[in-house]
Amino acid sequence: MKYIYYFGNKEAEGSAKMKDLLGGKGANLAEMSKIGIPVPPGFTITTEMCELYNQKGKDEVISILKKDLKSNIKRVEEIMGKQFGSAENPLLFSVRSGARKSMPGMMDTVLNLGLNDEIVEGLGAKMNNPRFAWDSYRRLIQMYGDVVLGLKPADKESVNPFEEIIEKMKEQLGIKSDVDFTTDDLKFMVRLFKKLITDQGYSFPQDPWEQMWEAILAVFRSWMNERAVIYRRIEGIPDAWGTAVNVQTMVYGNLNERSGTGVAFTRNSATGENFFNGEFLINAQGEDVVAGIRTPGQITKKEAVEWGRRNNIPEEIRQKKNPSLEELLPDIYKELYSIQETLENHYKDMQDLEFTIEEGKLWLLQTRTGKRTGEAMVKIAMDLYRSKAINEREVFERIDVEKIEELLHPVFEGQALAKNEPITKGLPAAPGAAVGQIVFFADEVSKYEKAILVRLETSPEDIEGMNLAQGFLTVRGGMTSHAAVVARGMGKCCVAGAGSIVVDYKKRSFTVGGKTYVEGEWLSLDGSTGSVYEGSLPTIDADIREDFKELLELADRVSNIKVYANADSPTDAHTALKFGAKGIGLCRTEHMFFEADKIKPMREMILASDTEGRERALAKLLPLQREDFKGIFRAMNGLPVTIRLLDPPLHEFLPHTKEKQEELALNLQIKAGQVREMVEHLKEANPMLGHRGCRLGNTYPEITRMQTRAIIEAAISVKEAGISILPEIMVPLVGEVEEFRLQKQIILETIEDIFREKKTTVDYKVGTMIEIPRAALTAHKIASEADFFSFGTNDLTQMTFGYSRDDANTFLPIYLEKNILKNDPFQVLDRDGVGELLSTAYTRGKEAKPALEVGICGEHGGEPSSIKFVADIGFDYVSCSPYRIPIARIATAKAKK
Amino acid sequence: MKYIYYFGNKEAEGSAKMKDLLGGKGANLAEMSKIGIPVPPGFTITTEMCELYNQKGKDEVISILKKDLKSNIKRVEEIMGKQFGSAENPLLFSVRSGARKSMPGMMDTVLNLGLNDEIVEGLGAKMNNPRFAWDSYRRLIQMYGDVVLGLKPADKESVNPFEEIIEKMKEQLGIKSDVDFTTDDLKFMVRLFKKLITDQGYSFPQDPWEQMWEAILAVFRSWMNERAVIYRRIEGIPDAWGTAVNVQTMVYGNLNERSGTGVAFTRNSATGENFFNGEFLINAQGEDVVAGIRTPGQITKKEAVEWGRRNNIPEEIRQKKNPSLEELLPDIYKELYSIQETLENHYKDMQDLEFTIEEGKLWLLQTRTGKRTGEAMVKIAMDLYRSKAINEREVFERIDVEKIEELLHPVFEGQALAKNEPITKGLPAAPGAAVGQIVFFADEVSKYEKAILVRLETSPEDIEGMNLAQGFLTVRGGMTSHAAVVARGMGKCCVAGAGSIVVDYKKRSFTVGGKTYVEGEWLSLDGSTGSVYEGSLPTIDADIREDFKELLELADRVSNIKVYANADSPTDAHTALKFGAKGIGLCRTEHMFFEADKIKPMREMILASDTEGRERALAKLLPLQREDFKGIFRAMNGLPVTIRLLDPPLHEFLPHTKEKQEELALNLQIKAGQVREMVEHLKEANPMLGHRGCRLGNTYPEITRMQTRAIIEAAISVKEAGISILPEIMVPLVGEVEEFRLQKQIILETIEDIFREKKTTVDYKVGTMIEIPRAALTAHKIASEADFFSFGTNDLTQMTFGYSRDDANTFLPIYLEKNILKNDPFQVLDRDGVGELLSTAYTRGKEAKPALEVGICGEHGGEPSSIKFVADIGFDYVSCSPYRIPIARIATAKAKK
Repeated sequence: MKYIYYFGNKEAEGSAKMKDLLGGKGANLAEMSKIGIPVPPGFTITTEMCELYNQKGKDEVISILKKDLKSNIKRVEEIMGKQFGSAENPLLFSVRSGARKSMPGMMDTVLNLGLNDEIVEGLGAKMNNPRFAWDSYRRLIQMYGDVVLGLKPADKESVNPFEEIIEKMKEQLGIKSDVDFTTDDLKFMVRLFKKLITDQGYSFPQDPWEQMWEAILAVFRSWMNERAVIYRRIEGIPDAWGTAVNVQTMVYGNLNERSGTGVAFTRNSATGENFFNGEFLINAQGEDVVAGIRTPGQITKKEAVEWGRRNNIPEEIRQKKNPSLEELLPDIYKELYSIQETLENHYKDMQDLEFTIEEGKLWLLQTRTGKRTGEAMVKIAMDLYRSKAINEREVFERIDVEKIEELLHPVFEGQALAKNEPITKGLPAAPGAAVGQIVFFADEVSKYEKAILVRLETSPEDIEGMNLAQGFLTVRGGMTSHAAVVARGMGKCCVAGAGSIVVDYKKRSFTVGGKTYVEGEWLSLDGSTGSVYEGSLPTIDADIREDFKELLELADRVSNIKVYANADSPTDAHTALKFGAKGIGLCRTEHMFFEADKIKPMREMILASDTEGRERALAKLLPLQREDFKGIFRAMNGLPVTIRLLDPPLHEFLPHTKEKQEELALNLQIKAGQVREMVEHLKEANPMLGHRGCRLGNTYPEITRMQTRAIIEAAISVKEAGISILPEIMVPLVGEVEEFRLQKQIILETIEDIFREKKTTVDYKVGTMIEIPRAALTAHKIASEADFFSFGTNDLTQMTFGYSRDDANTFLPIYLEKNILKNDPFQVLDRDGVGELLSTAYTRGKEAKPALEVGICGEHGGEPSSIKFVADIGFDYVSCSPYRIPIARIATAKAKK
Repeated sequence: MKYIYYFGNKEAEGSAKMKDLLGGKGANLAEMSKIGIPVPPGFTITTEMCELYNQKGKDEVISILKKDLKSNIKRVEEIMGKQFGSAENPLLFSVRSGARKSMPGMMDTVLNLGLNDEIVEGLGAKMNNPRFAWDSYRRLIQMYGDVVLGLKPADKESVNPFEEIIEKMKEQLGIKSDVDFTTDDLKFMVRLFKKLITDQGYSFPQDPWEQMWEAILAVFRSWMNERAVIYRRIEGIPDAWGTAVNVQTMVYGNLNERSGTGVAFTRNSATGENFFNGEFLINAQGEDVVAGIRTPGQITKKEAVEWGRRNNIPEEIRQKKNPSLEELLPDIYKELYSIQETLENHYKDMQDLEFTIEEGKLWLLQTRTGKRTGEAMVKIAMDLYRSKAINEREVFERIDVEKIEELLHPVFEGQALAKNEPITKGLPAAPGAAVGQIVFFADEVSKYEKAILVRLETSPEDIEGMNLAQGFLTVRGGMTSHAAVVARGMGKCCVAGAGSIVVDYKKRSFTVGGKTYVEGEWLSLDGSTGSVYEGSLPTIDADIREDFKELLELADRVSNIKVYANADSPTDAHTALKFGAKGIGLCRTEHMFFEADKIKPMREMILASDTEGRERALAKLLPLQREDFKGIFRAMNGLPVTIRLLDPPLHEFLPHTKEKQEELALNLQIKAGQVREMVEHLKEANPMLGHRGCRLGNTYPEITRMQTRAIIEAAISVKEAGISILPEIMVPLVGEVEEFRLQKQIILETIEDIFREKKTTVDYKVGTMIEIPRAALTAHKIASEADFFSFGTNDLTQMTFGYSRDDANTFLPIYLEKNILKNDPFQVLDRDGVGELLSTAYTRGKEAKPALEVGICGEHGGEPSSIKFVADIGFDYVSCSPYRIPIARIATAKAKK
C-alpha cells in the first residue's frame, strides 16, 4: 500500500482524479504540479491513513509512515536545497487538512513547522530578517497550542488565549496593528506563549520531528471535531471519508513588502460574470486574508477602481491608498493571470486559487472548484456550454440542484426599496433578501424563528447557528471572508465588511449612524446590493432570468422524466405552467370543499343520516365541483391532470367549537346536538390511520360517483369547447387490490352512464396512490388493475417509520441531534425503508403491467436527492409544488445516467 | 381433458384422493364403489367445469360435455336396465353439488330428474305406486322451481311459495301431514305448482334432457349464491375452487314402508365415544331427515332406549312408537353396521354416512369425514392413536385447531345449575354454555352483543346470523338437523328439538311451561345437557381433561417451536404455566404502572420539568418495579422472561377529567394548571405514531436506566435465592438500528454499573420488537445488534395496512361484508403484506446473525393459521395470552412439516 504521494517541481505521483485518496487539495496540488504550475513541493498522506488512525491510533500510524515520511522530506530537501531541522539552512513545512470535498475552515492547519529556539535564530540570519523569523515562530507556537494542544477560548465572549496576549501587548505598547510589533516584542510574545502552554501542563516541543508528527495526527483528529461533524451533517458528507494531510514547503508572504498572499476566482463567484478577480495582502500569510482581520486590496485594477467609486474615494487617492496587484506588481499579476487561464481551461470550471508571493516569486498553494452563488453557478455553466468548453452532460455536472433554490429566493419589493433608506452599506457578499431579528451569537440564533446574525466576523465554530439564520451581517472581512464564503455555500444572504457598524457584544447591541439596534429588533439585508435596512421589508418572488431559462430548457431536452405539479386550483395550475410543469400530478379535491360555497353542502352531506340524504347534498356539490375541474382543465389545455378523490377524514370538514357548531345547526335547520353528536361520532383516536381515502369511497360509494361525474362532465364540457384534456382519476389510500377494484368499478359504471347520457366519450385513466406499505408490497396485484401509480411518499413515510408527522416534533429534532437519523425523512426520502418499498413496488408493478405509468407526488417529488433516487429506479414522472418545479426540472436532468 | 368420471357397480374412474377435481362427495362415491360398497351408479362432472362455466358460460360447457354426458348416462342405463326419458321403464337421476370441502346445505340439489307428464304415469305403473310417482313429480317441480328458476319466499316472515301451496292445501283438506295427501291431491298440487311457475313467466320443461342440463348449470351457479359465498368467507374456502356436480341414479326411500332413509356416524360426534349411531325415517327421502321437519327415529337400539328414558316413555311403548332401525329392519341394520366398520377402517376417521333403503335394498349415498365437536375430535384422534390406527402425524391431521377452543369454552357454574330449574329441555346437540338475549331472526342477531337465536328450525340462509350468535335453540329437528350440524361445526352451543316450545315469529316471542319470553330477554343454554334456563347464569372456565392433556403432551413432543405467554404479573405467569407455557414472550411493564402504588410516582415523573425531577420520581418507582419483576421471575423459575421497556405514550398515564387533574395537582402539591398544561402538551394527533416506545427511552434515557436497573437487580436478587432466570430486555418500536444501538448502549452501561456495585453477574439478552415496517425492511442491520426479534404483529398490522385498530370499526366490518378483505387482519395474520414483512425480516435477520432468536408476540401468536405461517418461515417461538396457549401448542405441532 502507498500512503504518501509526492508533488513538486513539475512532477507528481498523484493527479486530480485521486480526490478520494488524496483529498481535493492534495489531488489538485499534484495536478497543478504536473501541468507545470509553480507549487511549493511537498506530499500528501492519504485519507486511508486517517481511517487507520481512527481505528488503530497513533503508534500504528507512525510505524507505518515513518520510513516514507523521511524519504519524502528528503526529496523536498533536495529540491529546495534546505534541510528540515537545520539551523543553518532551515526548511519549514505547513501541515494542512484536505478532504474529498472542500470543508473550508472546518479542520485544522499548522504553519511554519520546523522552527525551535535555535532554528529561529538561523532562519533570521539566513533570511536576513530576524523579525520575520520571530513572527513565524510565534505563529507556529500559537497554532500548535491551538490545534495540537487544543487551548480554546474560556467562553464565547472571550477571544483565543493567544490573541488575548497579543491584544494585551498592543494595549501595553500603545500600538494598533500586528505589524507594529518589533523583533524584541515578538521574542517577548514567544516567551508569553510558551508560558501559557506550560501553565496548562503542556510544553512546546523543540524537536522539529515531534512537531511534524503531532501536527499530522492533530489534523487527522480534527476530522472528528465538533464543527467538522456538524458541517458534514449539514452538507451530507459521510463521516467515513476521512481527511488527507498535505505537508508542504513553507513559502512566505510575510517576508517583506515584495511578498504577499491572496485568493482569486477565475470568474465572479457572486454573479458568474467572466472576469478574473480576487483579493490580496502584502506582507501577510494566507490565513490573514481568509480571517478577515485586515481588509485586503483588489487584484485587478478594474475591481480596485470600482471599490474607489463605491467608497467615494477619488481615483488618484485610491491608487495610492489601495492599489491593485495589477498596479503594484504588474509582472506577478501577468503570471498569475496566465496561470488562472491555464487552470480554468484545464478544469473547465471556475477556480478558486490561493497564492503566495515570496520575494517576488509566485507560488500557487491551492486551486479548487470555486464556491459560487446559484446565479453564478447557472451563468458559468451556461457560458461554458455556449463557448463549447463543456457539453450538455457536463453542464449538469456543474449544477448543484440545492443551490437552484437561491434563484427562486424572494427579493425586496421595488417600492419598499424606493421608500426606505439603508442604515448602512457593506459588500454584496451573497445575494438575496433576508429579513429577521438581530442576534449576536451563533448559538442564540434558534431563539428566533427568523434571525439575522450580526458579527464582527464569523468563524467556523458558528457554522450551526449560521445554518439556522436568514442571513449574516459582518463588520470586517471581504468577499472571501468566512461569512461570505459560507453564505454563498449555503445559499443565504450576506452583507460583509459593513465597517461603519460598532458592535457591543456584552450589551448585545450595535450602533450605526448614531442609532443603536438591540437584539430582537428586525433588520432587512439586501445581499445583492449590500444595503442594510431597519425593520421588516416586504419581499416578492424572484423572476426566472434568461440564463436560468436556457438552463431549464436544456434540462427538459436532456431529461427523460416528466415534471408535474401538485395543484388544486386554476391559479395553482397557471403558476405550475409558468414554472414549466408538464401536467398536474396531484389535484387534491378536498381543498375545494373548504371554499365558502362548497363547505355548506359538504357539511350537509356529512350530517345526513342515510344514503338518500348524502346523495341530496352531493347533488348540490356536483355543479360546483364540475366548475372547479373545468377551470383547471382549461388552464392545462393538452396536458394530463391527475385528480385524487376525497382523501381526508370527514370530521375535518365539521366545525369544532361550540359556537360554530350551533351556527351550522341553525344554518342547516337541525338541532345543535345533532352536529355535536356527529362530531363526537367521527372523532378518531388516530385519524391518520382512520376512515379516510378510498375507505370513504368504499363505504359511501355515492361520494365517488359524484366526484367521477364532476370530473368527466367537466372534461366533456371543455372538450366540446375545443380543449384537449386527459383526466386521470386517482384513488387514494389503497392498501388492498380489492379496495381499488371496487372503486374502479364504481368509477367505470358512472363514466359509462355519463357517456350514454351525453352520447360522447373522453379519454381517461384510473389509477391509484401507493402510500400504504401494504400497497407497495402487493403492487403487482394492484398494477394489474390500475393505469398508473403515484407514490404518496408523505403518508408512506409516516407508516413505514410509524411517525405521525403532526407529532414527530416531540422526538425528531432530538433524533437528528443524536444522529439517530441522518435526515428528516419527511424532507429527504429514506433510502433504506421507504426507498426499498418504492423500488419493490416499481419492479412488481412494471412486471405485472409494463405500460404502467409510475410517479411520485409526495413532497419528496421536489427534493433533488429524492428525485435522483426515483429517477434511478426508473420513474416516469415526479410531481411537486409549483414553486419547486424549476428545481425538479434540473434535478431530473442531473439524474439522467 | 377428462371432465366426467363414472362410478357404480363396484367400479370407478375416480378415487378418494381426487377431492380437488371431483369434490368430496364425488371422490368418496368413487372410493366407496371401488371398495365394493353398494352405491347408486352415476358420474361426477369435475370442479374444473364449474370454473369454465363461470368464465365462458352455458353454451361452451354444454358443447364440451354433451358427448360424454350421453355416454355416461348410457352406461348407467345399461347397469340399471332402465332408460332415461323412457315412459315404460324410466330411469331418474339426482343432481347434487359437491365441493372440495364439505359445505353442508350451502349449494343446491335437484332430485327425481327425468319425470314429465307422461313419464310420471309410466313410473306409477312400473312401480305399481302412482302416489309415489306423483309425490316424486311434485318434488321435482318444486325443486326445479326453487333451484333452477330461483322462486324464493317473498320476505323473511313468509315461507317458500311451494310450501305455501302445500300448507294451504292441508288447511283446505283439514290434514296435518304430507303423508295424508292422496294421489289425486298430489296431481292437483302439480297443477298448482306448474301454475305458480307459469305465473312467474317461466315454464317447467317436459324434456328430461333440458331438465338435466338446467339442473347441472344451476348447481354450478349455486357455487356463487350469497349463502355459499358467506359460508366460504367464514370457513376460509377460496372462491376459485368451484363445485363438482354428481349425477346419480335415484333410489327411493319414499317408495313404501320397506323403504327409508337415514344418516349415521361411526362414532358419537358430540362426545367422540366409539359407538355407531344415527337417525332414520321410514318412507322418506333423504332431504326429510336433514331438514328436521319430521323427527326421526334412532338407528341403534341402544340410542332408542336412551331416547325413551330421556322422554319418560316406558320401554314397551317406546318399542312400538319409536323402534330403532336395529329392531325394525335387523338385516338392513346388520349390513349397514358392517359397511360403517369397513368405511371407518378404510378412512381411519369417524365417518358421516347417508343411506337409503329402497324396498329392502340398502344403498349408500354418501360418506364423508364426520363433523364433530372439539371434545369428540380430541377423543377420536387419541382413541385412534392409542389403537395404533394412526400415527403421531396423523393425529394432528385430524385436529382442527380452531375447534380446540371449544374445549376451553366456559361451562355453567355447578352451584348455579343446582339452584336453577330448566324451563325446558331439548337435544344436547352441541356442547358448551351460552348466555345471550333472545332473538328470532338470523339477520337481527347483530342487534345484541350476545344473542341466542331461537327458531322453529334453522336454514342455510341463516348462516351469517348464526355465526354471530352465542348459541341456537330450535323447536324441531334432531342431532343431525341443520342447527345441530352448523353449531358443532362452528364450535357453538346448540339445544335442538325442544318441542315443547311454541314460537310466535310475528310477536317475536315464544311460550313454554305457560310462560312467554320475548325478544331481548336473557336465556342460558347448556348444550352439553340440552337444558334451557331463563336469565343469565354464571359460567366458569373449562378444565383440561385427560384426552386433551395427552394430546397437548403429544403436541409438545412433536413440535419444534416453543410456546411462550404474554404475561404481565405473577398471576398471569402462574396461569401461563398451568396451560403449559415454556416462558414469557412479552411482559408489558406499563400495565404495572397503572397499579395504585405506582401511578403516583409515574405521574410525578411525567410532570417533572427536567431530568433531575424525572430521576427523583423514577427513584421511587425503582423498588416497586423491582418487586414486580421478582414476583414474575420466581414464578417462572428456570424459564426465559422477555420484558418490554415502557411503550405507550406518556399521556395515557395522566388523568383526563378536570376533577381528576385537580385531585392530582393537590396530591403532588403543584398547580392544577400545570397538570392541565402537561396534558395539553402531551396531546397528539395520532398517538399510535407518536412519542412512544423507544422514542421515550431515547429522549428520556433515565426511564430506560431505571427499568433496566429494576430488571437486573430483581434477577440478581432471585438468583441469590437459588432461582434460575434469564431476563430478556426488549426495546419496543425500533424503526432504525441507531435507535436500538443507543438504547442498548444505555442498557449495557446500566448493567455494567450494577454488576460492579453488586459484585456479581447474571445472564441476560437484549433484543427488540419488530413492529414497524421499516424495522422489518432493515432487519439485517438491527439483527447485527440484537440478540432476538419479537414481531409485534398488532402494530405491524396497523402500520402495514394504515389501519388504526381503535378506529377501524368504522370501515372494517363493511370491508369484510363487501369481501374487500377476506379476514380481519387483526385476527388472522395478513399473508400478502404483513406476512411478507415477517419472512423478509426473518431471512435478513438470520442471514446477518444465524443465532438470532425469532418469535412473535402480537395477538396472532395465538391464532392457528398465523402460527402455521410463522412456523413455516422458521420462527423459534410464538407468544400468546395464557388462555390461548393450549391452542398454540397444538397449532405448532400441526404446523410441523
